[in-house]
Amino acid sequence: MYSHVDGELVAAEDATVSVRDRGFQYGDAAVETLRAYGGQVFAWAAHAKRLQATCNALGIDHGLSERDLRGRVHATLAANDLTDARVRLTVSRGTHSGSLTPDGDADPTVVVVTDPLPRGGVDGERVWSEPATAVTAAVERVADDALPSVAKTHNYLNGVLARIDAGDADEAVLLDADGRVTGGAASNVFFVDDDTLHTPSLDLPVNPGITRWAVLELADDLGVPVEEGHYRPRDLRSADEVFLTNTTWEVRPVAAYDDTTYTTCKVGARLARALAEEVEARHY
Amino acid sequence: MYSHVDGELVAAEDATVSVRDRGFQYGDAAVETLRAYGGQVFAWAAHAKRLQATCNALGIDHGLSERDLRGRVHATLAANDLTDARVRLTVSRGTHSGSLTPDGDADPTVVVVTDPLPRGGVDGERVWSEPATAVTAAVERVADDALPSVAKTHNYLNGVLARIDAGDADEAVLLDADGRVTGGAASNVFFVDDDTLHTPSLDLPVNPGITRWAVLELADDLGVPVEEGHYRPRDLRSADEVFLTNTTWEVRPVAAYDDTTYTTCKVGARLARALAEEVEARHY
Repeated sequence: MYSHVDGELVAAEDATVSVRDRGFQYGDAAVETLRAYGGQVFAWAAHAKRLQATCNALGIDHGLSERDLRGRVHATLAANDLTDARVRLTVSRGTHSGSLTPDGDADPTVVVVTDPLPRGGVDGERVWSEPATAVTAAVERVADDALPSVAKTHNYLNGVLARIDAGDADEAVLLDADGRVTGGAASNVFFVDDDTLHTPSLDLPVNPGITRWAVLELADDLGVPVEEGHYRPRDLRSADEVFLTNTTWEVRPVAAYDDTTYTTCKVGARLARALAEEVEARHY
Repeated sequence: MYSHVDGELVAAEDATVSVRDRGFQYGDAAVETLRAYGGQVFAWAAHAKRLQATCNALGIDHGLSERDLRGRVHATLAANDLTDARVRLTVSRGTHSGSLTPDGDADPTVVVVTDPLPRGGVDGERVWSEPATAVTAAVERVADDALPSVAKTHNYLNGVLARIDAGDADEAVLLDADGRVTGGAASNVFFVDDDTLHTPSLDLPVNPGITRWAVLELADDLGVPVEEGHYRPRDLRSADEVFLTNTTWEVRPVAAYDDTTYTTCKVGARLARALAEEVEARHY
């Protein structure tokens, strides 16, 4: 399996970064998880825009065009003969002097790592085999004032600790300091109550997931009423259905959240189908 | 310059970690910054204890003895013919499967990186040339409930963003969500008011710095009254003197904090002298 590191395609054993790279030392790097279907990245423009938003939030001036970054992603997919894959695209601030304060000079390290996934779309296989179980983590979501949630970075310990706390459950649901639901450790959360689709609004520390955005667009197309707002765990517990979204899972129903079980995921299934149809139409 | 990576001494160009190492992907690693004087690490036992506290907080079961870790540090110093140095000792969770949730298997990556420093002790040269300037950062300290401050990890973006926010100042002072002073981005903060030494208490999101601890011990030895508590920026502004501590800076006086300037650092100078004498006696 080849990766793309610092401008070159390299075999797995050579896919390394310096131990002095700030992406390693401080998690000082922007990252996007992409999904390729039929050889093309889904919603590339949205991912590229969010990557740039992260780099802006971190003050990483990488000086690379969207076209250049996309070219590296496609070169990596081609080198591995992959059409359906998960792709991690990282732009680290690179190797600077020993100080925590970044040097002014831009010397980014761009890394592309791919993993094969099954074919997606209408006839595709999901990457998950069962609906998810989720529990509320004791770990609280990092506040926006400490680390902007718009930034998707290599500082992911908050989610790692929440997942450890969640034990055997598939996903941890993190609350903010005021007890409001922000989403999963690596997913956005939706619930349906009284035929309306609800999801935490982006004024909370919620990462603006690309699948979250795609699902909201599709709900609008299908005439499903949508409300973005502030919710408590009790709102999820009293909901008719709950589902999670991310680039790899797409739309994943939740079978159990804390002590609550759900027997249906009708709206989730409609949205999953609509997403699969869009993928099918655009990519295969 | 040699580094020690995954059990071997390697030259700088080979001092790398896999792009799939969790220390890179998620900042999922424990780290200590150590200082060697005259070939021996200062306060090794305290650093080893804190490293273990971090690994416990992260659930990293590295399975290595303190003796083994110390051996790698000394092997790296010896390979580089260094007696006075800054040392970064990292224990990353290693390379696991693609999921955010750690695998159960322990496969840690241990990294030791060294940089030469001038001789320390009474006749030593400081690594800083001027007293520090510091400003209050708009970036807020990550809450303990989101990431325990006892853990010193590769998730350091909170400090990086605070330093960027601080511009030309040497250090950023971070407040918690309630506006209380927690310390610098990479240092602990002390101030003296009415002959009493004050520093934020560890119930706040304050990293328990080794130099902080050493300075508190020395203050006790010298009969300087000490109070650990909750303080506001105004307490620092109205103080007689302010200083910062970390392993590299040792005790660094503050010349200016926001719009306040300080003309003295008498207690700080006494403590710096006492620390230098201790280093001199133990290491040279």
